[in-house]
Amino acid sequence: MKIGLYPGTFDPVTLGHRDIIIRASSLVDKLVIGVLNNSAKNPWFSVEERMELLRKVTKDMQGVVVDSFDGLTVDFGNKIGASVIVRGLRAVTDFEYELQIAQINHRLSPNIDTVFFTTSVEYSYVSSSIAKEVAKYGGDISGLVPEEIRDDLRAKCRQLAKGVQ
Amino acid sequence: MKIGLYPGTFDPVTLGHRDIIIRASSLVDKLVIGVLNNSAKNPWFSVEERMELLRKVTKDMQGVVVDSFDGLTVDFGNKIGASVIVRGLRAVTDFEYELQIAQINHRLSPNIDTVFFTTSVEYSYVSSSIAKEVAKYGGDISGLVPEEIRDDLRAKCRQLAKGVQ
Amino acid sequence: MKIGLYPGTFDPVTLGHRDIIIRASSLVDKLVIGVLNNSAKNPWFSVEERMELLRKVTKDMQGVVVDSFDGLTVDFGNKIGASVIVRGLRAVTDFEYELQIAQINHRLSPNIDTVFFTTSVEYSYVSSSIAKEVAKYGGDISGLVPEEIRDDLRAKCRQLAKGVQ
Amino acid sequence: MKIGLYPGTFDPVTLGHRDIIIRASSLVDKLVIGVLNNSAKNPWFSVEERMELLRKVTKDMQGVVVDSFDGLTVDFGNKIGASVIVRGLRAVTDFEYELQIAQINHRLSPNIDTVFFTTSVEYSYVSSSIAKEVAKYGGDISGLVPEEIRDDLRAKCRQLAKGVQ
Amino acid sequence: MKIGLYPGTFDPVTLGHRDIIIRASSLVDKLVIGVLNNSAKNPWFSVEERMELLRKVTKDMQGVVVDSFDGLTVDFGNKIGASVIVRGLRAVTDFEYELQIAQINHRLSPNIDTVFFTTSVEYSYVSSSIAKEVAKYGGDISGLVPEEIRDDLRAKCRQLAKGVQ
Amino acid sequence: MKIGLYPGTFDPVTLGHRDIIIRASSLVDKLVIGVLNNSAKNPWFSVEERMELLRKVTKDMQGVVVDSFDGLTVDFGNKIGASVIVRGLRAVTDFEYELQIAQINHRLSPNIDTVFFTTSVEYSYVSSSIAKEVAKYGGDISGLVPEEIRDDLRAKCRQLAKGVQ
Repeated sequence: MKIGLYPGTFDPVTLGHRDIIIRASSLVDKLVIGVLNNSAKNPWFSVEERMELLRKVTKDMQGVVVDSFDGLTVDFGNKIGASVIVRGLRAVTDFEYELQIAQINHRLSPNIDTVFFTTSVEYSYVSSSIAKEVAKYGGDISGLVPEEIRDDLRAKCRQLAKGVQ
Repeated sequence: MKIGLYPGTFDPVTLGHRDIIIRASSLVDKLVIGVLNNSAKNPWFSVEERMELLRKVTKDMQGVVVDSFDGLTVDFGNKIGASVIVRGLRAVTDFEYELQIAQINHRLSPNIDTVFFTTSVEYSYVSSSIAKEVAKYGGDISGLVPEEIRDDLRAKCRQLAKGVQ
Repeated sequence: MKIGLYPGTFDPVTLGHRDIIIRASSLVDKLVIGVLNNSAKNPWFSVEERMELLRKVTKDMQGVVVDSFDGLTVDFGNKIGASVIVRGLRAVTDFEYELQIAQINHRLSPNIDTVFFTTSVEYSYVSSSIAKEVAKYGGDISGLVPEEIRDDLRAKCRQLAKGVQ
Repeated sequence: MKIGLYPGTFDPVTLGHRDIIIRASSLVDKLVIGVLNNSAKNPWFSVEERMELLRKVTKDMQGVVVDSFDGLTVDFGNKIGASVIVRGLRAVTDFEYELQIAQINHRLSPNIDTVFFTTSVEYSYVSSSIAKEVAKYGGDISGLVPEEIRDDLRAKCRQLAKGVQ
Repeated sequence: MKIGLYPGTFDPVTLGHRDIIIRASSLVDKLVIGVLNNSAKNPWFSVEERMELLRKVTKDMQGVVVDSFDGLTVDFGNKIGASVIVRGLRAVTDFEYELQIAQINHRLSPNIDTVFFTTSVEYSYVSSSIAKEVAKYGGDISGLVPEEIRDDLRAKCRQLAKGVQ
Repeated sequence: MKIGLYPGTFDPVTLGHRDIIIRASSLVDKLVIGVLNNSAKNPWFSVEERMELLRKVTKDMQGVVVDSFDGLTVDFGNKIGASVIVRGLRAVTDFEYELQIAQINHRLSPNIDTVFFTTSVEYSYVSSSIAKEVAKYGGDISGLVPEEIRDDLRAKCRQLAKGVQ
């Protein structure tokens, strides 16, 4: 069984992420979405919340499971038996960073390869940080995050705004 | 009347910004310079100070006004009746970021378009953060910020240095 | 009256070009589409044919005229009284080339500035050469070139195929 | 059965190509290497010769077959039942071109996706044209093309040199 | 005597840095490695520690000395009599940033030029931050930092981990 | 004695080339400008003419000699005893190509290193092909090529124009 790992912060999952998940899951038998527990990034959503949002978005997809990890991506990949890491590519600066990460991961664990999907054109401007910025000021997030989680993102905005007061 | 919006942090206005302001103001009937009130960026100058510096630099220009905003750029653009957002482009990484912002802005408000000017070659290395770095160590800022505000930048350096002691 | 020049080879006009024409024409009072007579590029369509296709596509647009030129773009811009050259930007390699051309044009004729529009996301993969490649092999060109000229492109393909035999 | 298509000119196959073939073949059940019959590129080797060189290099690999095509890549992909097109990525300019091609291919045939592998660091400077340039002047091609085809490349050089005289 | 300055944070020195040091030192009579005292970057190692690690790595190299500075790079360059600043280039985003810095440095001090070496392919993915990330999670750092300092990096990890508890 | 090689087509030498020659010659004891005899590029000037133009431009420079070569750059570098190849960098696409060439050259001849200078801002848009394009249409070439060779470029234009008639 071919197992793929799609690692990321997913704070929160966007329509761009969902697009990669759908396409990657048709390439492997099982796709593990690995939510990175990275305290340095000051996420809006906790790891548990981000996993919950991903589960809402992927609940009807076959062969897709949601998990979390900290530490090196290749260590988690080996633990779950992944033979391939999946990443989305959007822009040139993405590409250079991702290329560097793929090379160091290959050095650390030659048995896991990295494959890239390019984001579909209609999601080329979509990112978690853009979605949060638009949501923060009450803009229209319908082209940015999946329908299942829009209320969660709006609720989180209200909650964060209260915390500031 | 064609109204343009030139949004930015302007902390402080540089010779590169002034170049774009002059060129953009000849393209529209009225150019609004919108100072972004972005607390996340830890600016050296307050929004009011940044507006004051911009007013010094543009006081002899026809059809140029200085304003401030927080929230989404397109919301402010709609409020002031702008039909076009103006941005300067310097480097490839600038370009990618600006392209993404232009696309999300177009999605949020299709009635406002974004046009880009490329920075003149003599200002291609000029940025607010470079100007502050040079000023901080007493370097020559004459090719970086307009003459009208050089003393303000030097005074701010002395003031910030005192604060650290 | 503000006059803009949109120069290019237009062999043939694409949906991406049409998008730029519509947006640029709302920025200036008159937009001149300048078809470059560049024998070096081995075009499929003659200058006259390319102008005719552009006229079909723009016939209902106000303030848009089609012309042709050879020589330097700024010389033609000065001849028609243009104050601004309009260009579309798609990718990073576009950007660098366009930046270089804008800088040399500015040096040759400082009174004409260059402004850039970024291609709308849905046309980000569209170019004249891609349209010709797809048409040549009988692929679907409906998302690539305007409806008014699709039959012309298909007819040209048949004509070129005959010429080869 | 998952079928992948690795299209290219392969004039001739390099160590970089071989690296992608090995890695891609482990991702799919059958990998078809599709040699593009592109007369415009003035190849050194005929389509038949390029297929023969690829067969030498891949003769011990399971699930790898060599074929040729002209026309649109997605048309060939559909003909052989491919669900995925495989491409290697080396540099930023590669990336932009490949992204554009992937987008047009997706538009022409949404049922075929494109995945990218990034070239291993030790082959990051390897290309068919570099290999030909080095071979032409008698340089050392051992880090550029697979051992099985080095004599073929040297023989082709001698043959082409004779043709010039 | 031609003196070169190789400025950087070196937190800690990597195999990529050592590669540049060896190559640059053969270009000048004396190479000064200037450790930047940049408090803003939250380094793992103090300036003194970083200098000590560099001394371990360069102790057998002729004409290489280690020093530290704060302030503008060109001011330090002038103080030590350098005629050339040496920098390594890895990726496109590196290049743009480095180009901008070289241009501002040239403006501030025209007598000092900047020359660039490109990182050797085998170190193209190596950086201080990658080395720290791998070390933090107990990964293999042998292809990332010189042998002489591997124990120092591991010891620092243990020390920092204790500090968090 | 440190010998540097500055290889190129120089069809013709530009102000950008001259800038690199001046700066590179201060880094080495002897700088050899190597004019590449590359028939594939359809140069305006013959190898002898290009060498003659370079000699005019460099006649007052100490330690600069003009030579020509065909074949691999590193072979010529070894023949003249060069320890370093000098190249100018202008844009991102330049950088990628140059990086690839530096890597293959390093593989072919590890004893010769490549160092890069970045073009001064005032020459960032200057290239031989731009100079020829401007000259061809009678534009102002004074900011593009050195004064010593302007008449030669104009004369060549007239000569080529006659050849076409």
